Amino acid sequence: MRRRAAVLSVGSELLLGDLTDTNATWLSRRLTEHGVEVVHHLAVGDDLDRLVAALGWLAAEVDLVLVGGGLGPTADDLTREALAAAARVPLEPRPELEAELTARFAEMGWRMAPQNLRQARIPAGARAIPAVGTAPGIHLELDSTHVVALPGVPWELHQLFDTDVVPLLDELTGGGVTLTRVLHVVGRGESDVAEIVEPLVAGRDDVVLSFLAKAHEIQVRLTVSGTDRADVLARSDPLVAEVAAALQGAVAGVDDEDLETVVVRRLTEHGATLATAESVTGGAIAARLARVPGASAVLAGGAVVYQPGAKERLLDLPPGFLAAHGTVSETTTSALASAARARLATDHALAVTGVAGPTEVDGLPVGTAFWALAGPDGEVEVHGRRVPGDRAQIIARVGTAALDLLRRHLSAPPR
Amino acid sequence: MRRRAAVLSVGSELLLGDLTDTNATWLSRRLTEHGVEVVHHLAVGDDLDRLVAALGWLAAEVDLVLVGGGLGPTADDLTREALAAAARVPLEPRPELEAELTARFAEMGWRMAPQNLRQARIPAGARAIPAVGTAPGIHLELDSTHVVALPGVPWELHQLFDTDVVPLLDELTGGGVTLTRVLHVVGRGESDVAEIVEPLVAGRDDVVLSFLAKAHEIQVRLTVSGTDRADVLARSDPLVAEVAAALQGAVAGVDDEDLETVVVRRLTEHGATLATAESVTGGAIAARLARVPGASAVLAGGAVVYQPGAKERLLDLPPGFLAAHGTVSETTTSALASAARARLATDHALAVTGVAGPTEVDGLPVGTAFWALAGPDGEVEVHGRRVPGDRAQIIARVGTAALDLLRRHLSAPPR
Repeated sequence: MRRRAAVLSVGSELLLGDLTDTNATWLSRRLTEHGVEVVHHLAVGDDLDRLVAALGWLAAEVDLVLVGGGLGPTADDLTREALAAAARVPLEPRPELEAELTARFAEMGWRMAPQNLRQARIPAGARAIPAVGTAPGIHLELDSTHVVALPGVPWELHQLFDTDVVPLLDELTGGGVTLTRVLHVVGRGESDVAEIVEPLVAGRDDVVLSFLAKAHEIQVRLTVSGTDRADVLARSDPLVAEVAAALQGAVAGVDDEDLETVVVRRLTEHGATLATAESVTGGAIAARLARVPGASAVLAGGAVVYQPGAKERLLDLPPGFLAAHGTVSETTTSALASAARARLATDHALAVTGVAGPTEVDGLPVGTAFWALAGPDGEVEVHGRRVPGDRAQIIARVGTAALDLLRRHLSAPPR
Repeated sequence: MRRRAAVLSVGSELLLGDLTDTNATWLSRRLTEHGVEVVHHLAVGDDLDRLVAALGWLAAEVDLVLVGGGLGPTADDLTREALAAAARVPLEPRPELEAELTARFAEMGWRMAPQNLRQARIPAGARAIPAVGTAPGIHLELDSTHVVALPGVPWELHQLFDTDVVPLLDELTGGGVTLTRVLHVVGRGESDVAEIVEPLVAGRDDVVLSFLAKAHEIQVRLTVSGTDRADVLARSDPLVAEVAAALQGAVAGVDDEDLETVVVRRLTEHGATLATAESVTGGAIAARLARVPGASAVLAGGAVVYQPGAKERLLDLPPGFLAAHGTVSETTTSALASAARARLATDHALAVTGVAGPTEVDGLPVGTAFWALAGPDGEVEVHGRRVPGDRAQIIARVGTAALDLLRRHLSAPPR
């Protein structure tokens, strides 16, 4: 029998419209992958009666309720109280949780306010899930429905889901997994990608196809079920390869490997180093790579050459160069790439210039952008075009174009 | 009496985790602004029984249910059927809607499939809301609760809300607006902030207080109602000032002004320029500032000095300096700030070093970090501590600590 779940998100900020409930989205994707059908998302404010009523209603409807949020230390964090009231048991202080909390605060050198000890109180008979931040999770049963409460902070929720909820799901479903294979497509439009991919999946009743458009990439999502992870991968690998081939090199990465991860991995495999020279992106390209663990082995550094003077002072462009060639141009972008590579003594260097807006620069319209790659032999490849979007999207898209240029250059195996 | 509303989002795609429910966020903000308290978001798949049950449950709880989605022409669009079943009335074809639909398809030169006429069927006794796309909305009452169903396509939903739902809200509430004032707090923990702020708001029945913790800031949120926008601001400005004073300079900005925006504005007011020297953050500090429109007037540029060699090559640290003082240390961070300021000839320079993980560096644990500010007279202020979190959070928090150091230095009015 297919198990059914509901996601209960707790927090008044969700209901004021100031925050979109991405935890519900994330949990739903993961529950779906594990073969559990999500039948409801419900968001409730920080109100004890409504929380208790919501828990009661959902527990009667599904096999598993995942609660996100309301486990913090403040008076408006009421998930603990609501779980206790719904289960008709008292809250109990747990000495081991108090000790853990005290130790964590001491380790960080923070002062622990008395109200932080609220987080060590758990409904009687419930199982405490050890915290990864400061908020422990809670697992109990209401009648025969499992209720698991996790902190609303996304990284804590993700980590506790993986370590603690996944084993429970396997127990409930008897295993079996549904995975969504993700192809990260860069430099192509959504309708363009759909027109190529849809015919390849048309005959496959065992595959659910969807598309997700982000500022810097289109995700092609293929959802496939099987007995276990290896089975799903074996069933879906040929289709993933077929789709990637049809998209002719526009697939930057698959599954957890996005563009930045692939660039860091390929630089590592080639034993190559990278420098950056960023004008319009203001350091975002280097920062995107620096978020990938292991980046410090391949990213030497970079120059944020935001104002014209910085191009001269940090990368030694000769006086008069910018006046002659413009601050946003093919020639200047090429020169910046070569200069960054020379200055930082790296194998490769990426450079970008452009106009992010809100106003035009030197008569160039918002969205004008150039990106260049200087390679190991000193050769430079430069591209330019008008990039659509608002300021944030232009910055994201120019960075992606530059990183993708490097990815394509590194696609041959290391020599 | 404060009117209460719920948002019911219809569509299985929401429950698979492929789509985040931004309609619920948008509707909640608009309802809140019009003085209606949103007490629930509920998402339900394309399942008739569950939709009818959800409508019944919500109608018993609130004065107004806004339904988004499920009004399309396909067989899995079941909102019309669910409304009719919940109201215990039949669906009726409406000739005027059929005529409108036929005319619209003719106008667009599209062929109208017979199933499109499903969209002209409305529960008996309900009011049809003329379509702006192809899907008409529906307004009916379940007992004394208003239920308004709008198409799920965001632009159609937004437009019909403004033309059709807002007048209903004014009728229900007698007019008035509610706004959320936001104080962006940096460098303090959530429980710490709550302990200070909660007593200040304790006696105020007209203010709803909530907290929102993000990686780089804590938001203190004060929701206040009044007759119009000016009235709300006048009522809440003294409390905002009182809370800011109690937090002793930890409030980086208010409402739409976050830390980055305030730093760019204050640099602009001072006519001052900034350079950065970033190791652990990899360019993220400069990139955060570059996202603010107008940053190009104050952010000269920066050096991403990620690997040790880059610190020497880009900022001319003397040979042996790093060996003597370490790549992550107070002395090195100070030296980087001074070097960036000199090299880029700016008034101020920020520098950061640290260990983002996943592994320790030179025996320093993950989270060790230093940030320094070199000021106009050449003086340098440097701070360091162990920053909690995963790699992404450490990068975000170190960047925030550095930017906040600069904000505090710029808090005096320009000379």
